[in-house]
Amino acid sequence: MAPFLSRRDLQFQLYEVLDTASLPQRPRFAEHSREVYDDVLNLAYNVADKYFANHAREADLNEPHVVDGKVKLVPAAAEAMKAFREAGFFSAHHDEELGGLQLPHVVTQAAQAHFKAANIGTSSYPFLTIGNANLQRAFASPEQQQKYMLPLLEGRWFGTMALSEPHAGSGLADITTTATPREDGTYSITGTKMWISAGEHELSENIVHLVLARIKGAPAGIRGISLFIVPRYRVNEDGSLGESNNVVLAGLNHKMGYRGTTNTLLNFGEGGETIGELIGEPGRGLQYMFHMMNGARIGVGMGAVMLGYAGYLASLEYARERRQGRHASNKDAASEPVRIIEHADVRRLLLRQKSIVEGGLALGLYAAHLEDEIETGPEEGREDNALLLDLLTPIVKSWPSKYSQEALSDAIQVMGGAGYTRDAPVEMYYRDNRLNPIHEGTEGIQGNDLLGRKVTQAGGRGLKVLLSRIQADLKASGGLEGLDEIRSALEQAVAQSSAALQSILTKAPDLGPDLFLANANSALEMLGHTVIGWMWLRQAIAAARALPEARGDDADFYRGKLQAARFFATHELPKVKAHAELLASADRTTFEMQDAWF
Amino acid sequence: MAPFLSRRDLQFQLYEVLDTASLPQRPRFAEHSREVYDDVLNLAYNVADKYFANHAREADLNEPHVVDGKVKLVPAAAEAMKAFREAGFFSAHHDEELGGLQLPHVVTQAAQAHFKAANIGTSSYPFLTIGNANLQRAFASPEQQQKYMLPLLEGRWFGTMALSEPHAGSGLADITTTATPREDGTYSITGTKMWISAGEHELSENIVHLVLARIKGAPAGIRGISLFIVPRYRVNEDGSLGESNNVVLAGLNHKMGYRGTTNTLLNFGEGGETIGELIGEPGRGLQYMFHMMNGARIGVGMGAVMLGYAGYLASLEYARERRQGRHASNKDAASEPVRIIEHADVRRLLLRQKSIVEGGLALGLYAAHLEDEIETGPEEGREDNALLLDLLTPIVKSWPSKYSQEALSDAIQVMGGAGYTRDAPVEMYYRDNRLNPIHEGTEGIQGNDLLGRKVTQAGGRGLKVLLSRIQADLKASGGLEGLDEIRSALEQAVAQSSAALQSILTKAPDLGPDLFLANANSALEMLGHTVIGWMWLRQAIAAARALPEARGDDADFYRGKLQAARFFATHELPKVKAHAELLASADRTTFEMQDAWF
Repeated sequence: MAPFLSRRDLQFQLYEVLDTASLPQRPRFAEHSREVYDDVLNLAYNVADKYFANHAREADLNEPHVVDGKVKLVPAAAEAMKAFREAGFFSAHHDEELGGLQLPHVVTQAAQAHFKAANIGTSSYPFLTIGNANLQRAFASPEQQQKYMLPLLEGRWFGTMALSEPHAGSGLADITTTATPREDGTYSITGTKMWISAGEHELSENIVHLVLARIKGAPAGIRGISLFIVPRYRVNEDGSLGESNNVVLAGLNHKMGYRGTTNTLLNFGEGGETIGELIGEPGRGLQYMFHMMNGARIGVGMGAVMLGYAGYLASLEYARERRQGRHASNKDAASEPVRIIEHADVRRLLLRQKSIVEGGLALGLYAAHLEDEIETGPEEGREDNALLLDLLTPIVKSWPSKYSQEALSDAIQVMGGAGYTRDAPVEMYYRDNRLNPIHEGTEGIQGNDLLGRKVTQAGGRGLKVLLSRIQADLKASGGLEGLDEIRSALEQAVAQSSAALQSILTKAPDLGPDLFLANANSALEMLGHTVIGWMWLRQAIAAARALPEARGDDADFYRGKLQAARFFATHELPKVKAHAELLASADRTTFEMQDAWF
Repeated sequence: MAPFLSRRDLQFQLYEVLDTASLPQRPRFAEHSREVYDDVLNLAYNVADKYFANHAREADLNEPHVVDGKVKLVPAAAEAMKAFREAGFFSAHHDEELGGLQLPHVVTQAAQAHFKAANIGTSSYPFLTIGNANLQRAFASPEQQQKYMLPLLEGRWFGTMALSEPHAGSGLADITTTATPREDGTYSITGTKMWISAGEHELSENIVHLVLARIKGAPAGIRGISLFIVPRYRVNEDGSLGESNNVVLAGLNHKMGYRGTTNTLLNFGEGGETIGELIGEPGRGLQYMFHMMNGARIGVGMGAVMLGYAGYLASLEYARERRQGRHASNKDAASEPVRIIEHADVRRLLLRQKSIVEGGLALGLYAAHLEDEIETGPEEGREDNALLLDLLTPIVKSWPSKYSQEALSDAIQVMGGAGYTRDAPVEMYYRDNRLNPIHEGTEGIQGNDLLGRKVTQAGGRGLKVLLSRIQADLKASGGLEGLDEIRSALEQAVAQSSAALQSILTKAPDLGPDLFLANANSALEMLGHTVIGWMWLRQAIAAARALPEARGDDADFYRGKLQAARFFATHELPKVKAHAELLASADRTTFEMQDAWF
């Protein structure tokens, strides 16, 4: 089987594009070194390869089902959790005092990428748990952290996020799950939550749900939403488990992909009382949740990148082995058929995948790098970096979700009929990844977030930071050989995007909020491609600098980076213009369409 | 459940865009009338609704499997075959003397569309049978037709096309299945065929395989390939069935979608002799097969259209019912959430689907209309129409295959999590349709066929016919209200496409055949979008002419057509430019990429 990621590329991204090797100069990472980071990545590779990749297809073919009232998963999932726990990955990014390694975000993301590439379904359980613990670490009381977070860091208990309800998915403002105050300061929770991943299973001793609910009498809308810790089993003062907390599995959802991840409909307060503890202050639930959600969105983007990456490598391996057809210039029917990687159209499909998944990986790691800069970087850059990360988050989430799907379609296409069967993994990745443009905020929501909030936030400063960083890299690329096409294509995309944003923002007061947002998707597409073009410029700069001294495989690697950058410049960046023009013109086609006309 | 197609749209396409009602003026259709055609379509709707739509999901969930050496399908498939047979659809387009109705191609395609939309997997069995019979009708001897074709027209026996082999899928020139002459003039067939749809089942008394093979001693390449009739059971002189012909099921392929259609690996001549009869002359097998293949390619395109259509209607129904969120301009959290069809981004997803599937349907029916013009239209236009159909065939096959997939992704997106589960049909359509860009000639092959063969064929006359017909429609649209955007967008797309083709054709001698074809995919994309833009102009003309007199639902219908035409003009046609520029520049990015650089 093809490897599920390229370790060489990961090294390039961390140490040649980003300056990860310099992080140990910061106080928080003083105990680290590049060797420490490489050991972490090697461990991640080995655990992912041995305990996650081994049952990705098995979990796909045997989706979670209920046996004697319990959700049954393939046994290999439990072994994977054990290996993940023993390797220390539940807490690796946390403070030493919590048993962690204080790993920087960029190394944490790189390590986690292995598990996503190897088995997206099984990896959901630990990553939801990690996200849950991160939220508690930020907002829960010390007592709550002691009681509910530490067991998550140890990997003994798992976590979920319980936001959606049957009638409220994207529209969280309308949730109706209710929290009624009890005399002891806790709350009685009643209601139904839908689409809860990892909502019920036997992988861990307990499950800690983070539940959005309204305290009785709270106002309508998001200001009335609070956040609660709701365990599956109640927890005694000494940390031992008590009786059932009456969170009842009402049904399993049967999905096209991502089948290893149990997805549930849960009833709270059915057949007995469900008790929850309020996190922080009432009415700030959504705000707290979005702290976790922003990390979750970067995580979704990285998951999409890695599914696309695994598919790319599988189709590449196939294209190097499969022989079929001849070049148009060869009229000798008795000659041996060529390996299909020799066909220009197959190279197009492979280069497109390469440009998407390596561009997406660069962006995901850049986002993690920004998280490090915000937390441990020079003081004076932190606000800029925070605004830039805010601006980029909808792109980090949605661009790989959409374009990895196209890359995976290209992977299937390279493999032809074989790619369409269960004998190859790509059809599974294709089904898995189709979830990514939906969960943790649909593509529509990301577009509205980007154009309606992030672009104008803080007087548009995030956008200014983005543009000035791109300009700095464009300048840095001057004089390097072989970068003309990517530079000029990116300059055009930046100019078109900037002009379009200026145009729509100028018109905004006349348009009103609804028409202003009508083409938000074009803003997302336009800026998404521009940002990935920038990520390719950054990779091309690193490759062009390294190439003159490189030999053998290394030289080939850098030439591949430069050619993929050229591909993105010639084949993808020209698509920006149509989106920019649509946005700039405040096109009314969708806005004016009427229900009755469909 | 949502309807699987729009009968109103089908009426519009047949009678308002195309002039189907005038066909009975031709001698071959003299017994017909519009009422006859409508009766046929009503019958198709009723049979498809009752006997095909009923088990689409059931067949998806219970894929064909082997029980006691026999391939078992869901029982409803056999009932569907009976209903299809009793309704006379196996032979409806054939001559009266063969028991047919002499239906024109355009009505036949429209009727068949119902079954594809209702259940693509089960509908493969009759459509492969019909294609097989069509080939026999064109090239088999009268004795062969009597023996092997008539039972297909009666729907008693079914047919397949057996081209691919494990080592030869797209590269048919390299097939190795061998035909050894026997003393009685028949041939002994040995070899293995892969990806044979409907290759084994118990739905019919016999299965007639059309098998490509090489007669011993034949030259290498396609000139050495001949075509054979190979029945599953040998056929006695009186038409009764004899013993097994030793075509052995070696395995079933397990696909992502299209699961109702058995897909097989077949061994010929295993455990005994497999006897075949040569069709026509030796060495012309591929040529005969392509007679069937061109029809099959139009059929694949129509299948893709109808899967997209069914998905569009399902997501439209959902969007009209599901309430979620509020307009950005509404700050009242206590107000009722709007139906999601009110959100501009959801309307974008729906309009995009509408523009793709209705544009694709217009093209598929236009291709069928051309078939009628070639066979029964005015003598003087036949050659032009034949060249135009040749030119359009790769687009008819590949454009809906690719863009229905995007439409189905949009359908899933409209429905969110619900669309990603098996509770809704769209995830199944999405899995089903992903086959269409692969089988009957991959997208890569269609691109090479278009640029490498069809564009230059007969001195480029097919292309000239296309351009002059588009110009005629552009002229006809003058003076009609509301068509400015579509007209000007199409004019630009036509100008860009023409210039790009002229540029690449001028450079061709210097480029050599391999580099000339390196960007064939861009030619396919560019001309595909341009042709669909033309199909939308034709629909817009019909709608604009009818609108002034229309009332109520009819007026809404025409306004929807105009708005979808505008959508295609504003959101899709601007994408032509980037492809045209890439093609015109003879971009070398994919051509120069090296294996070692990946």
